[in-house]
Amino acid sequence: MITKRDYPTQNIRRLLEPGPVVLVSSAHKGRTNIMTMGWHTVLEFTPSLVGCVIASSNHSFDMIRKSGECVINIPTADMVDTVVKIGNSDGGDIDKFDAFGLTPSKAAKVKAPLLRECFANLECKIHDTRMVNKYNFFIFKVVKAHVMPFRKFPQTLHYHGQGIFTTDGRRMDKSRGFTKWKGSPTF
Amino acid sequence: MITKRDYPTQNIRRLLEPGPVVLVSSAHKGRTNIMTMGWHTVLEFTPSLVGCVIASSNHSFDMIRKSGECVINIPTADMVDTVVKIGNSDGGDIDKFDAFGLTPSKAAKVKAPLLRECFANLECKIHDTRMVNKYNFFIFKVVKAHVMPFRKFPQTLHYHGQGIFTTDGRRMDKSRGFTKWKGSPTF
Repeated sequence: MITKRDYPTQNIRRLLEPGPVVLVSSAHKGRTNIMTMGWHTVLEFTPSLVGCVIASSNHSFDMIRKSGECVINIPTADMVDTVVKIGNSDGGDIDKFDAFGLTPSKAAKVKAPLLRECFANLECKIHDTRMVNKYNFFIFKVVKAHVMPFRKFPQTLHYHGQGIFTTDGRRMDKSRGFTKWKGSPTF
Repeated sequence: MITKRDYPTQNIRRLLEPGPVVLVSSAHKGRTNIMTMGWHTVLEFTPSLVGCVIASSNHSFDMIRKSGECVINIPTADMVDTVVKIGNSDGGDIDKFDAFGLTPSKAAKVKAPLLRECFANLECKIHDTRMVNKYNFFIFKVVKAHVMPFRKFPQTLHYHGQGIFTTDGRRMDKSRGFTKWKGSPTF
């Protein structure tokens, strides 16, 4: 297993903006859980904010709301079958770490476990709950990020509904065209 | 140019959940504009809701807030250079339709123009502005969707920061694993 490095939280847009399916881990009162999530967006660079929809029907919803924390883990494309199994099982019935052979590892700033098999782990604390009641929309602050060292971005998963996923395809460097933004923190 | 078909608004997650870069068109007081946007998420199936960050520094911000409308257009990968140019120019200085050879076409339910060259056009009205002041986060309701007929999803663009884009890669049908969700409207 490759050792992860600390990653600047203001750069996590590079990981989330392409739209990968993520696995959200949580812990509350001695229990842990994992859910699959596809509805998320970056909201801000600094502080590092991410908005996510977590349906109240999910076992994770109460665990995250009550603990105030979670970890957003980014799986690579080879984990697709595990991602599907996690999304199609209920944390009230089974321990998903045990059931799917995943390794919890200790986070630095939250109690929720990191998924060791995932390429990146973003430790999150709830930042704003104003949109939770109406839209199940949580705003998290990323307080610590761990990422496997990489030269080019690893292949992640993108969900299209109806059981269809795609991976990342051809890579294009268009940086020369970024005349307005090049060199700025938002580039 | 291929004629588009009406597309059910409750299915637009199939287009947006994979995380494509989109082009947002707007109209206000006889002027139009286009901006590139990467920070968005689906929020609900029915009503069809999408949340987006539109920075207040964008020329489009006021046009969208004041008109209460926009169109989310999804470009295909062959439009990457146009996407970069739109994101690196200012609608206060130029007419982006003219400058980049794009064709505005008439929407059904909003005044903002559709971008004819894009694969999909989602007509949107502002649904909730409570998060605009603090996060520049608009919640739109998709009131009408137009999509080119397709057998498999067209290649779109995913932005990784620093001028790097990827297209959609390998497609995997994992529908057999969706034991919990298959057949439900959220599948």
